[in-house]
Amino acid sequence: MSTDYTPRPEDKFSFGLWTVGWEGVDVFGPASRPRLDPVEATYKLAEMGAAAVTFHDDDLLPDEDTREHTLDRFTKALADTGLRTEMVTTNLFSPPIFKEGALTANNREVRRYAVQKVLRNIDLAASLGADTFVLWGGREGAEHGAGKNIRASLDRMAEGLNLFCDYAIEQGYSLKFALEPKPNEPRGDILLPTIGHAIALINELDHPEMVGVNPEVGHEEMAGLNFAHGIAQAMWHGKLFHVDLNGQHGPRFDQDLRFGAGNLRGAFWTVDTLLGAGTGNAYEGYVHFDFKPPRAESIEGVWESARGCMRNYLILRDRAQAFRADPEVQQALAASEVGALDEPTLAPGESLADLRQASYDVTTLAERDIAMEALDQLAMEHLLGAR
Amino acid sequence: MSTDYTPRPEDKFSFGLWTVGWEGVDVFGPASRPRLDPVEATYKLAEMGAAAVTFHDDDLLPDEDTREHTLDRFTKALADTGLRTEMVTTNLFSPPIFKEGALTANNREVRRYAVQKVLRNIDLAASLGADTFVLWGGREGAEHGAGKNIRASLDRMAEGLNLFCDYAIEQGYSLKFALEPKPNEPRGDILLPTIGHAIALINELDHPEMVGVNPEVGHEEMAGLNFAHGIAQAMWHGKLFHVDLNGQHGPRFDQDLRFGAGNLRGAFWTVDTLLGAGTGNAYEGYVHFDFKPPRAESIEGVWESARGCMRNYLILRDRAQAFRADPEVQQALAASEVGALDEPTLAPGESLADLRQASYDVTTLAERDIAMEALDQLAMEHLLGAR
Amino acid sequence: MSTDYTPRPEDKFSFGLWTVGWEGVDVFGPASRPRLDPVEATYKLAEMGAAAVTFHDDDLLPDEDTREHTLDRFTKALADTGLRTEMVTTNLFSPPIFKEGALTANNREVRRYAVQKVLRNIDLAASLGADTFVLWGGREGAEHGAGKNIRASLDRMAEGLNLFCDYAIEQGYSLKFALEPKPNEPRGDILLPTIGHAIALINELDHPEMVGVNPEVGHEEMAGLNFAHGIAQAMWHGKLFHVDLNGQHGPRFDQDLRFGAGNLRGAFWTVDTLLGAGTGNAYEGYVHFDFKPPRAESIEGVWESARGCMRNYLILRDRAQAFRADPEVQQALAASEVGALDEPTLAPGESLADLRQASYDVTTLAERDIAMEALDQLAMEHLLGAR
Amino acid sequence: MSTDYTPRPEDKFSFGLWTVGWEGVDVFGPASRPRLDPVEATYKLAEMGAAAVTFHDDDLLPDEDTREHTLDRFTKALADTGLRTEMVTTNLFSPPIFKEGALTANNREVRRYAVQKVLRNIDLAASLGADTFVLWGGREGAEHGAGKNIRASLDRMAEGLNLFCDYAIEQGYSLKFALEPKPNEPRGDILLPTIGHAIALINELDHPEMVGVNPEVGHEEMAGLNFAHGIAQAMWHGKLFHVDLNGQHGPRFDQDLRFGAGNLRGAFWTVDTLLGAGTGNAYEGYVHFDFKPPRAESIEGVWESARGCMRNYLILRDRAQAFRADPEVQQALAASEVGALDEPTLAPGESLADLRQASYDVTTLAERDIAMEALDQLAMEHLLGAR
Repeated sequence: MSTDYTPRPEDKFSFGLWTVGWEGVDVFGPASRPRLDPVEATYKLAEMGAAAVTFHDDDLLPDEDTREHTLDRFTKALADTGLRTEMVTTNLFSPPIFKEGALTANNREVRRYAVQKVLRNIDLAASLGADTFVLWGGREGAEHGAGKNIRASLDRMAEGLNLFCDYAIEQGYSLKFALEPKPNEPRGDILLPTIGHAIALINELDHPEMVGVNPEVGHEEMAGLNFAHGIAQAMWHGKLFHVDLNGQHGPRFDQDLRFGAGNLRGAFWTVDTLLGAGTGNAYEGYVHFDFKPPRAESIEGVWESARGCMRNYLILRDRAQAFRADPEVQQALAASEVGALDEPTLAPGESLADLRQASYDVTTLAERDIAMEALDQLAMEHLLGAR
Repeated sequence: MSTDYTPRPEDKFSFGLWTVGWEGVDVFGPASRPRLDPVEATYKLAEMGAAAVTFHDDDLLPDEDTREHTLDRFTKALADTGLRTEMVTTNLFSPPIFKEGALTANNREVRRYAVQKVLRNIDLAASLGADTFVLWGGREGAEHGAGKNIRASLDRMAEGLNLFCDYAIEQGYSLKFALEPKPNEPRGDILLPTIGHAIALINELDHPEMVGVNPEVGHEEMAGLNFAHGIAQAMWHGKLFHVDLNGQHGPRFDQDLRFGAGNLRGAFWTVDTLLGAGTGNAYEGYVHFDFKPPRAESIEGVWESARGCMRNYLILRDRAQAFRADPEVQQALAASEVGALDEPTLAPGESLADLRQASYDVTTLAERDIAMEALDQLAMEHLLGAR
Repeated sequence: MSTDYTPRPEDKFSFGLWTVGWEGVDVFGPASRPRLDPVEATYKLAEMGAAAVTFHDDDLLPDEDTREHTLDRFTKALADTGLRTEMVTTNLFSPPIFKEGALTANNREVRRYAVQKVLRNIDLAASLGADTFVLWGGREGAEHGAGKNIRASLDRMAEGLNLFCDYAIEQGYSLKFALEPKPNEPRGDILLPTIGHAIALINELDHPEMVGVNPEVGHEEMAGLNFAHGIAQAMWHGKLFHVDLNGQHGPRFDQDLRFGAGNLRGAFWTVDTLLGAGTGNAYEGYVHFDFKPPRAESIEGVWESARGCMRNYLILRDRAQAFRADPEVQQALAASEVGALDEPTLAPGESLADLRQASYDVTTLAERDIAMEALDQLAMEHLLGAR
Repeated sequence: MSTDYTPRPEDKFSFGLWTVGWEGVDVFGPASRPRLDPVEATYKLAEMGAAAVTFHDDDLLPDEDTREHTLDRFTKALADTGLRTEMVTTNLFSPPIFKEGALTANNREVRRYAVQKVLRNIDLAASLGADTFVLWGGREGAEHGAGKNIRASLDRMAEGLNLFCDYAIEQGYSLKFALEPKPNEPRGDILLPTIGHAIALINELDHPEMVGVNPEVGHEEMAGLNFAHGIAQAMWHGKLFHVDLNGQHGPRFDQDLRFGAGNLRGAFWTVDTLLGAGTGNAYEGYVHFDFKPPRAESIEGVWESARGCMRNYLILRDRAQAFRADPEVQQALAASEVGALDEPTLAPGESLADLRQASYDVTTLAERDIAMEALDQLAMEHLLGAR
């Protein structure tokens, strides 16, 4: 195995500054690591092979007094390293004012303040040349059945998104927006809990073409959903504007493990899907990691964790490419009739009447060999580096 | 508690014939109950207070030889009892020919046979005057990452739905279609796993107005999702064409308990949401139960289980109405600012510039009392009949 | 419904000071409420009807400088109010030194420091007259397969518990110890994840009679387990030394909702089980609430949440007692042969040979009516106050 | 990768005859495959490299008429192939007589019939020279809170196990018994839901040394539990008498995937734990697969699925051995202080007083580097064949 899994800028790896910057605060304990200067983190990520960084307003610019100075240092770091700010997002979940929601808080002043906070950060995102503006509504939701009118929440969420699109158009920004779904935590139930719910909402907006999704591996897997299937559906809708890779062990708290360190088979199919699943329709955006180095690790572990995200992606990419290139796999795909699903069920020009008159050999079809265990075992052995 | 919880036709209760007809076959054992004649079941359900029945083709008409005779007996039973067939659905999951999918089977002949089976049953549904045609794609899905191309699956699913809509239009049928999402079981992962994913797909169809969803309590709860939130979003989209009520205990196998006998608080909010959640936008369709009387029960238990579905709905309806009518609840809703969420965040005619210039009292807003525990406790006490 | 659900000291309600004292810090945001003085909280809980309070060392006595003064104020509050300190526990999870475990940290100095911290607090617990000393090992666990040797962890956990028992014996304390299981969060997987695992370990200790369990509703339900069944097994082993009541919605993050506000049917059976499930073998200890008032609530909501815990318990107790006293329920229990399970399968003096020679009417037995849907519906209607 | 992953008898692979024999019946559909003759399956499994087979009475010997003839053919197959019957189990879950439990059915005649069925099969197990007799109580449980008295259930379960042990002793059989825990499915909640609950019960038996556990990967993972941790605890108790390997994707229905084809990282640590996790305390029993070839597969897929179980075990064994042998891993384990956990917290002869007087450098310990991300990444790369 002489393959070199060193990350390179062309791999388009991107990191949230809040990921390596997480100090370890959780419900059961305070910070276990000191604050990490986001500008230093930017240099370090560049050195490790990343191509871009992303941030919430509050990660980089927690207060007004240091804002200009930090921005200067940050833009210098970008210039020094060649890193981009490919995505920006706004923290609408930590400040206690958003304790009961931001864009969908019952309190209208809170909603207005949330919109103000986002607009200001859209300007920053545009000024830094970001492609994508992500919105994660971590506090949009409820623990109480009557406390939150879901239909009004959807009205307000749509209103907020319409305002942001209008603003971007008005300002001539080329930004696109991406919603990040999550089923629960920190709220008992979060609005727009899955990729599907978010895309459904987007279709009701004034400018649906400007809004897509930013799915996160762990968020979908917390609902027991297949992440690769989820992003495949998002790609089918033309809505996979961005992606958050990490690791999770099914329905439980949000683990935010490094990429690969949860459902590894799922990670393999995720990479395969991003590469186009053998069909050429690949995701072209940044490969963005949104994880939390475990609280028990010191800063050395933080960087190991970040390095592991990239290495695991590269190894899995290598494995997925080898899988798709293997002639035996091609045969197995044919044996499973995978390609036949591309063919319309009704032939061009054929009428339903034709189909209705046909007779089908139900017994033979019922007994047919689908050969997917064999195909899947080939995938397994590629994944394990055993072929 | 002198309230009478006797079901009446105007309650619009509807039962799948396959529910009381389930013989108890599961992965771990054969039938524990004898076959129930669906025509006799129809008489019995009428006697118990149901207003309608529904069926899969195979439930009522398992073979060609008895088809005409059974249909005659069934239509007589409808006439005798005044019951309607409000919904019809096609079994695309039991016959082994559909072992690897029906409308999205890799094998094209299988897909064509599935379409044929549906079309035939659409005719029957129309002839019986059904309003809704439900499609549950229980075998559309995968256990193997490479065996199923998800994007092609969505193409084929959309193709099938387009064909059915075209056919209904062509035939002059007034039927609407409703997709029933489910995350998994019997397939490892099922296509269109949640309400959201189904609505997202529907937006891509040729006739989206003809297709909605038929969500099932347990199916959403298997993904840890809040069912009341899910149907509220479906109603917001105008897509709650039908509903399947039952009971489930979160992520695990599909329990299909009688309505109420799972997540009871969730059932209360489900009923409240169907009644319009105090806003007047109620669901007007049939209250359809899709459950399985536990395998251990004999036929007496089957009827008890069906009776319990209706009684629990009536009790919960009573509780939800009392909750919404309670002046103390009205005050509590106001204290939680629930109604304020109906108000647009930006006032009519107001510009974003106005909002951006405003200053907000962040500290006071952060410290505000949201009073939802108090509100929720009122709901709890109504639910428990303790007020 | 004229029943009065006012808590009284004889109801033996007990609250962790950390529950009402939770300031709202979570992974996604800082404190949303100011610090609550634990002594003031004690007065308030007494006023609301509680009979006892409990605490972790760090809740009440966060630093050395104020330790004596606070203890004086606290003991005065107990004297003033008549409240007891029925249970004490030690925080082995928040301090960063325990980031990788306390009693089972790989680092031996950390383990020694943990033991020291516990011993000191055992003295305090004894001096305050507590009955029970609870140990929750929230950081005992792992995210990494090779980082933690589970068998050595069990050795160290057993060693620690043996040391604590020896110490209590040596000092003449009458304290009993209770382990609190949890499957995960904040660690990826926690040692002794369920009631069963904890009881299994206890059987290997030097003084198993001194150690029992303190199960928490939400912790078992996070694993999809039936809490009432879990405590029933603990009672069968004579190991239910204490109990933590709260609310949870199945496998997801630890919600710590107020009692009742999660799985309500489960809460009903939990209360019924604590009352002896109709058999007279009741739990005699304190009814302890371990919940977190939602972060969005202000201090008013905190007290509403605490009040709701007690009211829900009292309502459910009322409902469970009415259920067990209902003659129709007695008949239904008989119809379901519930009491027959108390009868040994082999009669006294009977040999296996007798049983082997007997013949059984398999068909009739297979077809028997078990009538549990009817019984369960009676329970449902009692719970809903509809009988 | 020239390694040969061909199964050999010394690998001690064992298969349940019901695994490859599953015809595909599930809740949603009938058989999709014809019956497989268990004797032919035995020959085939031998040819594929298995060392042993196992069965439920009903798998091999479904009726009295063919019993003797089939037994003759089966023993001939064993003789011909050199396969052993290492384990036998009794089907106490399929026959409708057990619809509401077998050893813990409320009905006493049912319990007696269940005991009779087991005793008869114990004789057969002994006559075939089996080492282990497994008991899975798939129908021992409840959907209804009041229908099943859990404490009486545990009495009856213990009674049954005591009877079986007495019988084995009386007959001079060297059989050991192993309980197979499962949290739910087909019952809403099953008695003894996890490894821990089963071991706790075993400690209360008359002959605890004769009874251990037979954990199944998917059963523990359905509760979100870490399987490797579970078997490590069972090994610590000396109770891992047998093991069932398969694959599962967390809390959902029982998938029974081939080994490896679920939580792959978990499978790696499972194999590592069975090999002793680097400590030499290995599991010495048979490597038994209990899976279900997906219903969609034809018989070719059944054999592929069985072959995949063995190949995946061999690849993972290879990977785990390489991981443990890697000098860099040894260093990483030392850096994470993994071995230090073997050292008692209190030194031999040391008193608690010494420990209490010591002072600890809390800050330095809190900041220590635990280096487990680095260690885990090494494991990942071994698993992926990338080192």
